Amino acid sequence: MREEPTAPRASPSLRGDEKVTSADVDEVRVAALSPEILIGDLDGNLGRIRDAISAAALRGTRLMVLPELATSGYMFAGRAEAEKAALTSDDARWGAVCDAIPERAVVVVGYAETAGGRLYNTAAVLTRDGRLADYRKSHLWGIEKLVFDQGTEAGIVVDTSFGRLGVALCYDNEFPEVPRRLALAGADVLALPVNWPLVPCPAGEHAPELIQAMAAARSSRLPVVIADRWGSERGVDWTDGTAIVDEQGWIVAFRAVMGATAVLSLASAREKSLPPHNHLFDDRRMDIY
Amino acid sequence: MREEPTAPRASPSLRGDEKVTSADVDEVRVAALSPEILIGDLDGNLGRIRDAISAAALRGTRLMVLPELATSGYMFAGRAEAEKAALTSDDARWGAVCDAIPERAVVVVGYAETAGGRLYNTAAVLTRDGRLADYRKSHLWGIEKLVFDQGTEAGIVVDTSFGRLGVALCYDNEFPEVPRRLALAGADVLALPVNWPLVPCPAGEHAPELIQAMAAARSSRLPVVIADRWGSERGVDWTDGTAIVDEQGWIVAFRAVMGATAVLSLASAREKSLPPHNHLFDDRRMDIY
Repeated sequence: MREEPTAPRASPSLRGDEKVTSADVDEVRVAALSPEILIGDLDGNLGRIRDAISAAALRGTRLMVLPELATSGYMFAGRAEAEKAALTSDDARWGAVCDAIPERAVVVVGYAETAGGRLYNTAAVLTRDGRLADYRKSHLWGIEKLVFDQGTEAGIVVDTSFGRLGVALCYDNEFPEVPRRLALAGADVLALPVNWPLVPCPAGEHAPELIQAMAAARSSRLPVVIADRWGSERGVDWTDGTAIVDEQGWIVAFRAVMGATAVLSLASAREKSLPPHNHLFDDRRMDIY
Repeated sequence: MREEPTAPRASPSLRGDEKVTSADVDEVRVAALSPEILIGDLDGNLGRIRDAISAAALRGTRLMVLPELATSGYMFAGRAEAEKAALTSDDARWGAVCDAIPERAVVVVGYAETAGGRLYNTAAVLTRDGRLADYRKSHLWGIEKLVFDQGTEAGIVVDTSFGRLGVALCYDNEFPEVPRRLALAGADVLALPVNWPLVPCPAGEHAPELIQAMAAARSSRLPVVIADRWGSERGVDWTDGTAIVDEQGWIVAFRAVMGATAVLSLASAREKSLPPHNHLFDDRRMDIY
């Protein structure tokens, strides 16, 4: 038997004194939020992100996911323009976002991160008390390769007050290795901020990236909260693929204007056995691959 | 960079003198065939398999796939009953099946294989000239664990006259590791004999195993030819999920009574680049996983 792959755990670094450790909450209400995002409009986007969080907070939501690069927009002409719309992870403007987050809730939101001369496509993992982690995208799509530096982790798993939260970004999840590794590292649910450009699909079919997310969810009983863009930006139409996929791989909420919301069973997600004879993880043939 | 995983190549062992080596044929017509299968009716099943091959041969098909355990049926009461419906790989009755295969075509058909006191859930890879390979299922589902011994390869890749043929069986393909490894080992198309028990699905959704096959196809540009069962056997309803999935992950043929048939572009399947900046295989972050 080989050793299990270990996805790195983010170390909680909070502003307060309380250290967050994972609790095994059985059920959580989650939301995928997709406010209007205007390219380059950093302060406007931050305001709309804050408003979307406040609206979802009324419903007792424990996990809120917003799109990739939600603070900045996506279709940059080049690195220089992206740098102008970038934030550091300790920018004072994060404070107003965190203040909108209710107690016990976690927000995952994409932003352009500037850090010591480098520029990343990053997902911030935030609570009311501050920052749990930043995940820097490690599989860059298209012109992102000309704009961003690549991260050094293939997704992360973060301890939260409801359980272990996996975080990946868009194209990351199209590599079957990524969600599988995060599930094996103990993720109970995957937050997936995306910007999916609309592609042609046969009638009646979901977007291909959503099919991949459904399959990955079922393969490892890893539910996924996907926040996508809608409308268009500089000639690119977005898929509006915002969706919540349960641990069986089925879509349980889709494209709601105010944000898709659903209750996920993390207890079921944690149960990898398929009675009476099978087990999603133990049936892997680690002796031959 | 780690080394690529290498799926074992089957060594052609032919009856004739001609050694089969892979040619790079750009397009092939493929068929997924699903004749009536009656449990325990070995000779009847072999006859119906032969007839289905003969019918598909008229259409110039180069690859024909039949269901898992097509010669024997599936819902055995136990090992003893399965042994009675088993064949050795060199049983004389294979001759009549091979005789029905047209020149240059390859047939993949599931059978219960008895071999030196062991019993396997096996896929035979046959040509008119004889046997290219046998693949013994290595991920056993449900009561198969009580009936069959498990194989020692996670799918195989076989050189054929049209290209490199991946072979896996049913539950094997629900492990994302399996189709990924076969694609990385050079498979141009995957033959997937299955017996999918019908499970509840939300309205408008494909069977979950088919969604997983579509996702795996897209992740690695590996088209899949799936032959499933229809009807029912000893109280189990089958999914009738017979389908051909192209290298983009879309279903191009589905559930035809005489067998689903389609032309697949192996040239497109072999092309793993996503211009201008991406590549399905090279974008994997083998430095971090």
